[in-house]
Amino acid sequence: MTESVKRAKRTYDKLTRRIRAFNLPFFLASWEEESLPPAARPYRDKQLLELSSMLYELQTGKSFKNAVEVLYSARDELDPVLRHEIENVKLSADKLAKVPKKEYLAYQNVILDSYPAKFVKAKTTGDFSVVKPCLEKIIAYNRKYAEWEQTESLKGYDVLLDEYEKGMTVQKYDEFFGLIKSELIPFIKRALPAQKPVHPAFASQKFDVEKQKQFCKYLGGVMLFDNDKTMMGESEHPYTNNNGNCDVRITDHYYEDDLASAIFSAIHEMGHGLYELQVSDDLQYTMSGGGVSMAVHESQSRFFENNVGRSRQFWQRHFPVLKDIFREELKDVELDDFVHYINHAKAGFVRTEADELTYPLHVLIRYELEKGMFEGTVTADNVEKLWNEKYKEYLGLDVPNAGKGVVQDMHWYGGNIGYFPTYALGSAYAAQILFAMQKDFDVYAAMGEENVGKIAAWLKEHIHKYGSSKDPAEIIEGAVGGPFDPHYYIKYLKDKYSALCGISE
Amino acid sequence: MTESVKRAKRTYDKLTRRIRAFNLPFFLASWEEESLPPAARPYRDKQLLELSSMLYELQTGKSFKNAVEVLYSARDELDPVLRHEIENVKLSADKLAKVPKKEYLAYQNVILDSYPAKFVKAKTTGDFSVVKPCLEKIIAYNRKYAEWEQTESLKGYDVLLDEYEKGMTVQKYDEFFGLIKSELIPFIKRALPAQKPVHPAFASQKFDVEKQKQFCKYLGGVMLFDNDKTMMGESEHPYTNNNGNCDVRITDHYYEDDLASAIFSAIHEMGHGLYELQVSDDLQYTMSGGGVSMAVHESQSRFFENNVGRSRQFWQRHFPVLKDIFREELKDVELDDFVHYINHAKAGFVRTEADELTYPLHVLIRYELEKGMFEGTVTADNVEKLWNEKYKEYLGLDVPNAGKGVVQDMHWYGGNIGYFPTYALGSAYAAQILFAMQKDFDVYAAMGEENVGKIAAWLKEHIHKYGSSKDPAEIIEGAVGGPFDPHYYIKYLKDKYSALCGISE
Repeated sequence: MTESVKRAKRTYDKLTRRIRAFNLPFFLASWEEESLPPAARPYRDKQLLELSSMLYELQTGKSFKNAVEVLYSARDELDPVLRHEIENVKLSADKLAKVPKKEYLAYQNVILDSYPAKFVKAKTTGDFSVVKPCLEKIIAYNRKYAEWEQTESLKGYDVLLDEYEKGMTVQKYDEFFGLIKSELIPFIKRALPAQKPVHPAFASQKFDVEKQKQFCKYLGGVMLFDNDKTMMGESEHPYTNNNGNCDVRITDHYYEDDLASAIFSAIHEMGHGLYELQVSDDLQYTMSGGGVSMAVHESQSRFFENNVGRSRQFWQRHFPVLKDIFREELKDVELDDFVHYINHAKAGFVRTEADELTYPLHVLIRYELEKGMFEGTVTADNVEKLWNEKYKEYLGLDVPNAGKGVVQDMHWYGGNIGYFPTYALGSAYAAQILFAMQKDFDVYAAMGEENVGKIAAWLKEHIHKYGSSKDPAEIIEGAVGGPFDPHYYIKYLKDKYSALCGISE
Repeated sequence: MTESVKRAKRTYDKLTRRIRAFNLPFFLASWEEESLPPAARPYRDKQLLELSSMLYELQTGKSFKNAVEVLYSARDELDPVLRHEIENVKLSADKLAKVPKKEYLAYQNVILDSYPAKFVKAKTTGDFSVVKPCLEKIIAYNRKYAEWEQTESLKGYDVLLDEYEKGMTVQKYDEFFGLIKSELIPFIKRALPAQKPVHPAFASQKFDVEKQKQFCKYLGGVMLFDNDKTMMGESEHPYTNNNGNCDVRITDHYYEDDLASAIFSAIHEMGHGLYELQVSDDLQYTMSGGGVSMAVHESQSRFFENNVGRSRQFWQRHFPVLKDIFREELKDVELDDFVHYINHAKAGFVRTEADELTYPLHVLIRYELEKGMFEGTVTADNVEKLWNEKYKEYLGLDVPNAGKGVVQDMHWYGGNIGYFPTYALGSAYAAQILFAMQKDFDVYAAMGEENVGKIAAWLKEHIHKYGSSKDPAEIIEGAVGGPFDPHYYIKYLKDKYSALCGISE
C-alpha cells in the first residue's frame, strides 16, 4: 500500500466508526417505539432528524468521498473483504450523493409523520384515508428516487428491487412469480378443500399469555438465543433488530385465542436473530458485518419458521414441553393434531398469519401493486381498490377493511417499496438451502434434537459467518452449490402439502 | 442586530440543535443500562465514545466557537434569556476547550470501565478493591481537571463545587456544614434515643412487590406525573432522566421487607421529574431548558420526598389508599403509626435510605472526603479506611463492608466528584422554599389535597418554569425572597423532630 492509500484507509476507518456509531440512536429509538410516551415523540423525532442530517453529511462529505475514491482506485491491492466493502460503500455513497439533501430530509419527515402514529391509527381503525396522503408522498418520492438512481441497466422499480436484493430485477421476479402462478395456484385450489379440519381445541381454548411467554423463552434455548446477547420484547408487529453481533433484539406478540401466532413469530424472528448472532467476529467493527440482504435474511427466518419449525420432527421433541405448559388446554391434543394445526392452509387476509402454502400469493399481490406504482397504474388513489380486487382474484376473499387489507403491513408506510418480493424469494432460497443441507447430514433428524445446534452450525459455516462481505447471490450459490432455482421451492411445497392433504402433486 | 450577529445566531441555532440531538443516544442508553445484555456492552460503549468524540468536536470546533464569540460580544443586544445562555455556553465551551481531547476521551473510557460493571460488582460483593484502580484514575483526572480549569478565584475542589452549583465554594460549604455540625449533631444525639419504637408490622410483614408498584402508580397521579410524558422503570439505584420537558423517566426499586423504600424513592424521583416537566415550553428548543443545577434539583426532589411526603397531612389523604392495598399487612396500623415509621430517625450506613434528620451527616462525610481528595490527604488507598472512621465518628457505626460503605453510591465511580454536597444544600433550599411558600398559602393544607397541584403550580411559577435561564442563586433568591439561609433548615428539622420525639429544641 502506498502512503496515500494508507492515509485514506485511516480516514475511512475513522469515518466508518462514526457511521456505525450513528446506528445506536436509531437502534435504541426503534426498540422503544411502542412504549415511548406520546408527547415525547416530537422532540425525539427532531433529534433523530438532526442525527440523520449529520449522518448524511458524513456519508456525502468530502473526506469520506475522497477516502473511498482512493481506496476504490487501489481496490486490486486490498484484501477481498475490504475490496468488496469498498465497492459496496462507494456504490451507496454515490447513490446517496444523487439524492438532494433537502429531499432526503423532507422524506425522513414524511416517514416520521406516517410511521408509526398514522399507520397504527389507519390499521386499527381500518381507515386507509388516514395514511393515504403519506403514501402518496412516499410513492412520489420513490419514483423520483428511482429516476435519480437509474443506470443503463436499472430503471424504475428495478432500482428498488436491486437495493433490497442485489441482482434482482422485474424480469427475474416476473419469472419467479410466473412460476408460482402457473405451478402453485392450481395446486392450492386442489389442496385447500382436501384438508381435514383442525382439532377443535385450538379454536375453543384460551391460551394464557404468560404461559405462551414461558414457552417462547424455552424456544429461545432451542434456537440458541443466547441471553448474554439477546433481548425479547413485545410489539404489535414482531421484528428483529441488531446492533452488531452481540446485541440482537426480537419482539413478539401474544394472543390468547391464537397459540400458533406467538410461537411462529418467535421462531421466525429468532431465525433472523441467529443470522446476526453468527456473523463472524472479524466483521464486527467493519462495514461488512450484518446480514447481507433482505431475501437472504428472510431465507433464514422462514427456514426456521417453516422448514424447521413446522416439521413433525421438531415437534416430536418439543410438543411434550408445550403440552406440559398447557396441560388442561391441550389434554386431548396429540402430536399429529398439532402438526396438522400448524400446517393447516387457508386463504386469509393477513400475510404475517398466512400458512406456508398460500404465503407467496400474498407477496405476489404486493409485488404486482408495487410494479404498478412505477408503471404509474397504481396510485394512492386506487391502491386500496386494486388490493381488494387482487385478494378476490387470487385468494377468493372480500377484504373487510383496510386494517386487514392495504394497511396491514408497515412496509410502504415506513417507506419500504421493493422489500416485499424478498419475502417470497427468501422462502424459495430456504427450500433450496434445505435441499443442499440434506446432502451433508440428515436435517430432519437434526430438527428433532434438543436444540438447532447442528443446523445452526451449517448455516454459520455456509451463510451467516460471511455477513455482508460477499454479494447475496454469491453467498446463496456457495451455500446451495449452484444457481438459485425456484423449482426447489415449488417441489418442497407440493411434496409437503400433497402428503398432508393426501392428494397427488 | 447586525448581519454578522444574525449569521452567528443562525450558526449557533444549527449547532445547538445538533448538540441537543446528541443527548438522545446517551439518554436512551442510560435508560436501558441495567437491562442491556452483558455481551452487548463493548460494542455499544465504543459507539457512545465515538458519539462523545463527535460531540466534543462540535462543542470545541471553530464554527461553534466563532458563533458564540460573536454573540457574546453582542450580548448587550440580546434578550435576557439568550444573553444568559450565551454567557453560560461560552463558559462551558471555554472550559471544555481547556481539556485535552485525548485526556477527555481517555477519561470517558475510565468511566465506562468503572460504571456500571465494576461498581456493581464491588457494591454487591462488598469488595472495594474491584473499583479501587478506577477511583484512583478518577481522582487523578479530577485533580488535573481542576488545574486546567482554575481561575483567579476558583482553585482545586472549588472548581468542581462551582460546576455542580454555580457560586458555591469550599468556604461557603464549610460554613454550611459547620452549622450542621454545631447545631444538628448535638440535637441528633438527644433526639434519637427519645424516639418510640416503630410499629412491629413494618418489620414483620412482607409487602408484595406488585402491590407496591400499584401504589407507586397511584402516587404518580398524586404527583401529576402525566402518563403522556413519563415512564417508570426499575433499577437498583433509582434515578430520573429526561429528554426535553415531554420525556421524563424515573426508576424505582422494590423490596418486600421495606415498604418505605419504594414509596419515598418514587416521590423523590417524581419531584425531580416534576421540575423537568414544568420547565417552560419556550425553553424546550434552547440550551436553557432543563433544571438549573444539582442543588436546585435536589431541593425539588427532597422537598416532595420529605417536606411534603413525610408530612402527616399528606398521609391523612393517602394512607387509606395504601391501607386498602395492603389490607392484611396494615390492618393493625394507624395513621400515626405510619407517620412515625416514615419519620423514624436512626443512624444507618446507607445515605439513600437515611431519614431526614441524619441525612446531612452522610453528606457531610462525603464532603469532607472529597475535600481531602483535592488537599491530597484522601486517596484511593486510604478512602475506605477514612470513610469507615468517619461513620464511626459521626454516626457511631462500624461499617460492615464496602457495599454498605464507600461503594454504596455510584457518584464517584461515575466520575462525579463535587456532586454530593448539593444533596444537603438542596435539602436546605427546600426548607427555605417551604417557609416562603407558606406566606402565599397554607402549604400543609395543600399537602392533604387529592394531588400536589397547588404546590406544583407555585413551584412552576417561582422555580421550574425558568429552567436554566437564570443562575441557581438568582432563582432560589427570587423564590424565597432573599438570600439563602441554612438556619431555616436547622429550624425545620429541630421543630419537626422535637415534636416527633417530645424533646426541647
